[in-house]
Amino acid sequence: MKGYVFHGPGRSAWEDIPDPDLKEPTDAVVRVDAVTICGTDLHILKGDVPEVRPGTVLGHEAVGEIVEVGTDVRTVRPGDRVLVSCITACGRCRYCREGVYGQCLGGGGWILGHLIDGTQAEYVRVPYADLSVHPLPGAVTDQDAVLLADIFPTAYEVGVLNGSVRPGDTVVVVGAGPIGLAAVATARLFAPERIIAVDLAGARLEAARKLGADAVADARETPEQLVADLTGGLGADVVIEAVGVPETFEMCTRMVRPGGHVANVGVHGKPATLHLEDLWIKNVTITTGLVDTRSTPTLLRMAASGRLPTAQLVTHTFPLERMEEAYGVFAGAADTGALKVVLGGPRREVVAPRTV
Amino acid sequence: MKGYVFHGPGRSAWEDIPDPDLKEPTDAVVRVDAVTICGTDLHILKGDVPEVRPGTVLGHEAVGEIVEVGTDVRTVRPGDRVLVSCITACGRCRYCREGVYGQCLGGGGWILGHLIDGTQAEYVRVPYADLSVHPLPGAVTDQDAVLLADIFPTAYEVGVLNGSVRPGDTVVVVGAGPIGLAAVATARLFAPERIIAVDLAGARLEAARKLGADAVADARETPEQLVADLTGGLGADVVIEAVGVPETFEMCTRMVRPGGHVANVGVHGKPATLHLEDLWIKNVTITTGLVDTRSTPTLLRMAASGRLPTAQLVTHTFPLERMEEAYGVFAGAADTGALKVVLGGPRREVVAPRTV
Repeated sequence: MKGYVFHGPGRSAWEDIPDPDLKEPTDAVVRVDAVTICGTDLHILKGDVPEVRPGTVLGHEAVGEIVEVGTDVRTVRPGDRVLVSCITACGRCRYCREGVYGQCLGGGGWILGHLIDGTQAEYVRVPYADLSVHPLPGAVTDQDAVLLADIFPTAYEVGVLNGSVRPGDTVVVVGAGPIGLAAVATARLFAPERIIAVDLAGARLEAARKLGADAVADARETPEQLVADLTGGLGADVVIEAVGVPETFEMCTRMVRPGGHVANVGVHGKPATLHLEDLWIKNVTITTGLVDTRSTPTLLRMAASGRLPTAQLVTHTFPLERMEEAYGVFAGAADTGALKVVLGGPRREVVAPRTV
Repeated sequence: MKGYVFHGPGRSAWEDIPDPDLKEPTDAVVRVDAVTICGTDLHILKGDVPEVRPGTVLGHEAVGEIVEVGTDVRTVRPGDRVLVSCITACGRCRYCREGVYGQCLGGGGWILGHLIDGTQAEYVRVPYADLSVHPLPGAVTDQDAVLLADIFPTAYEVGVLNGSVRPGDTVVVVGAGPIGLAAVATARLFAPERIIAVDLAGARLEAARKLGADAVADARETPEQLVADLTGGLGADVVIEAVGVPETFEMCTRMVRPGGHVANVGVHGKPATLHLEDLWIKNVTITTGLVDTRSTPTLLRMAASGRLPTAQLVTHTFPLERMEEAYGVFAGAADTGALKVVLGGPRREVVAPRTV
């Protein structure tokens, strides 16, 4: 089959690789019908995630059809249409038993396209299939569903739920890329008083408005002042960091009100400065986190009933074999205006289904 | 009367000052029967808290008797024995209505010995008396009660409650000064699996053991390794920072397990480095806070029934007029072994009660 292989920083290719096989009785093999590229994949290509070894197939989000299951798999079978979650869960360790699947100690967590071969390929082996894929309601298209593999649960759990968004809140989302936009959309579900989106790109701020932001601010033009003006000088109840650089994290800690929450969603490669000389007295809660995907079943039900604006985030689609071109468009978002690029789907025809 | 006046960094004295008067109908004047010195007072003397103006009487903790109340005061009257809380609360602002008295927007919060004259004097004016003093149960001595003006509610609310200590947890308390020791004692109430105290001073670690620490570690000898060894490599569920320097805060973030809490209690004068490149993926919650003292009535009931080891923290007592000597003993804790020094109490006789 073909897959997108990381060969070390700056080197990767869509190339011939062996078909995946079942390795454990809890595995499934899934034919990939739709896949997307995550900002995290770009970090890997830059060399920011050193635990990814050369030779690894990238990708941790997919929709597809089960083609083969191990003898211990109970909840899905060949022919089932499933969402492949970015988080794999053993279901038995201390963390999984508490629903904290992202921190799975049993060999799960974020492993696809990270510690084992991922989803940017024609087929993917998914360990612990019972807890790591979700059967898909028919009403959800592949293109919509693939956004629930990572970005919607991440924005919702790590941003909105960790940030404790409540009715009447002022919520600031710093970074209006796909994750930030999904945070705007899911923060909206809690009836905040206002959502303020902050970014450098006018097109992204416009997208944020369409997804429910009440106000937008250019990150270069003291958004702290706008937040202060809108909140009587107090600051925001919740600030969601969806960029992943020290400057934006520090901006978030300047925007939060006493007693408020800063929910970090961004993937960071460098430390930030925490101004404890100002913050020690302010009753601030700062959270970090990898998604657990425990909200995925709920989000799937909401997508099926049309209550999540998933399709609005997809700006480009490609057939699967144009992966390299799709990476270029996604990496060049400043010029291409790309938000999410989806490959394959709604039911791709470029690769013939493998006979099981 | 006499009071301890701050005259700018490095300069302060126990000296003659005017008696306080009622200024607002919600004020009370309290005769100070017992008072203590806080680590924060030492920070002020060093010039670390620049909003304290020269001429301010220091101190934000006291036990005493109401001698005069304004016409709007309803819940206490002259002759009542009260605890003067470190937090003054208007009771009417947005924060007070949520019980977040430390962030009072109505002119309260931490003001005594900070923005207005404080308790290290023979008498003190207390604004918003209805919500800022607590009538004292007879069973609690002045010496025990004065520890509930700040350190016990601070350790309990900002450390133990913000840190979400739960049964079965491994709790690390970094810093075994009075606040850290009160955190050990109040964390114990939640039946943790173990409490590990970290400090540089052997005497303080010994005190931590007496107050309920199961293990202690010298801060110079890689306490991170002890925590890892005791938790199967995972880290602590809750880490409480009770020092207030960047190095100890950063140590806390290295000791916490994925999904755990770091509760900062320390008063910081400098920023710390937040290693988001490690922490972004770890589901960590970091909290800061000034005490609200909403737990004070509960702690007073517990003290009255002998369930708080307050007296164990008092190492030195002085009559009120020996304030300067008491400051020397407290500031020289490394040599004197001082934990809390209490002046006055159980019923000081050095100053005749003023006729009302």
